[in-house]
Amino acid sequence: MPETITLYTAKICPYAQRAELALEEAKADYTKYQIDLQNKPEWYAPKVNPASKVPALAYGGPAVPADQPSPESVKLAESLILVEFVADLYPHAHLLPSDPVQKARARFFIDVVSTKLVPSWNTVLRAGAPDADQAFLSAVDAVQSLLPAQGYAVGEYSIADIAIAPFIARAYVALGNEIGAYEPGQGKKLLEALQQPRFARFQKYWADLQARPSFQATFDKEYVTEAFRKRFGNKQ
Amino acid sequence: MPETITLYTAKICPYAQRAELALEEAKADYTKYQIDLQNKPEWYAPKVNPASKVPALAYGGPAVPADQPSPESVKLAESLILVEFVADLYPHAHLLPSDPVQKARARFFIDVVSTKLVPSWNTVLRAGAPDADQAFLSAVDAVQSLLPAQGYAVGEYSIADIAIAPFIARAYVALGNEIGAYEPGQGKKLLEALQQPRFARFQKYWADLQARPSFQATFDKEYVTEAFRKRFGNKQ
Repeated sequence: MPETITLYTAKICPYAQRAELALEEAKADYTKYQIDLQNKPEWYAPKVNPASKVPALAYGGPAVPADQPSPESVKLAESLILVEFVADLYPHAHLLPSDPVQKARARFFIDVVSTKLVPSWNTVLRAGAPDADQAFLSAVDAVQSLLPAQGYAVGEYSIADIAIAPFIARAYVALGNEIGAYEPGQGKKLLEALQQPRFARFQKYWADLQARPSFQATFDKEYVTEAFRKRFGNKQ
Repeated sequence: MPETITLYTAKICPYAQRAELALEEAKADYTKYQIDLQNKPEWYAPKVNPASKVPALAYGGPAVPADQPSPESVKLAESLILVEFVADLYPHAHLLPSDPVQKARARFFIDVVSTKLVPSWNTVLRAGAPDADQAFLSAVDAVQSLLPAQGYAVGEYSIADIAIAPFIARAYVALGNEIGAYEPGQGKKLLEALQQPRFARFQKYWADLQARPSFQATFDKEYVTEAFRKRFGNKQ
């Protein structure tokens, strides 16, 4: 029998959705516990994740309620580490390509997501610098240039797709609702830019990502829209 | 017969040394090609690594001279990806723990190196901000707090040790020679701080890292000292 798994997560958080996607893809038996990021429970940092962030995962130990974590379970944190951990625990889910070159390509794709797409998107959302839109579009371009002619990031669905999907999803929610640190109307403009023929391959990829049942099971669009509105507001 | 491997590297670069350490640990048969980072060959970016950084690795394809890379070989970049790639290709080297929890711990250690140790060290070396020393010491503390009572980062030698060793090595070279963006005398002070009893476990770990034959085979202390002096100078 596999060890028990408790995932500490939050619907708003793209990093947390990565861990949920991996667990769903693996068809893992696990407990999901929502952490209110604006009002974290007192026990969370000392007993689960000293960095006080989500996602975090408790693995093994005795069966306990999620809000009374046992010191005997292993606590793990950092979204990409959790995704690799789940891929490791459930090899039948094939979240890691078996070929070393393909595995390296999946990790390189994730590196581009981490060093280009996520920071440029955060600048659009939180800072609204004048050239933020262009930096974000060029990051999308960098992602697109890595995609094969069809299929997912490295062909078959993998950790690479898990790493990016939650961020694209939140970008669409924010831009579609003019949520973020930019002038009203800029969201729509950026969405239109993404609809240009030059991003056709990216659009197809995004459609494929959304169609994945694991994505639908882990992305609560209405909730994220409201939470983003509250958290990041509309620039007036 | 395994595919041919050419590593594009530079003795000064800590990221490049990571890839060398992994290949040495794996006892891989590979060609090492030094890239002069101040004067890169014209073919390097277009034919090996568009980002124009080291390390990069050419894998497979026909036997060609390293300075005439074949379009048929696979080109891979980013030091941590290369280290995982080598660990994958040479499982007998046991660079990745087989237990998923230990593997996650190794990657968490690397995350602390990447997000705390490396940036705080770079600030000491390149910027010399007033609180840079304290940030660096607290990063060393964070690393130390993850170490088991004895042995390497997660017990047996692993990718975690490969990720950190090149940075500690260069920190000692720079501080011991007062190389960096700080006032003369600060290097010695920081070295003394690292000698305090509170860092005893870290000191033992650093001694263990240096004793490793793969480290000795890949770290040219005299070369790095001279190259650092030229590149980062002494603050006068």
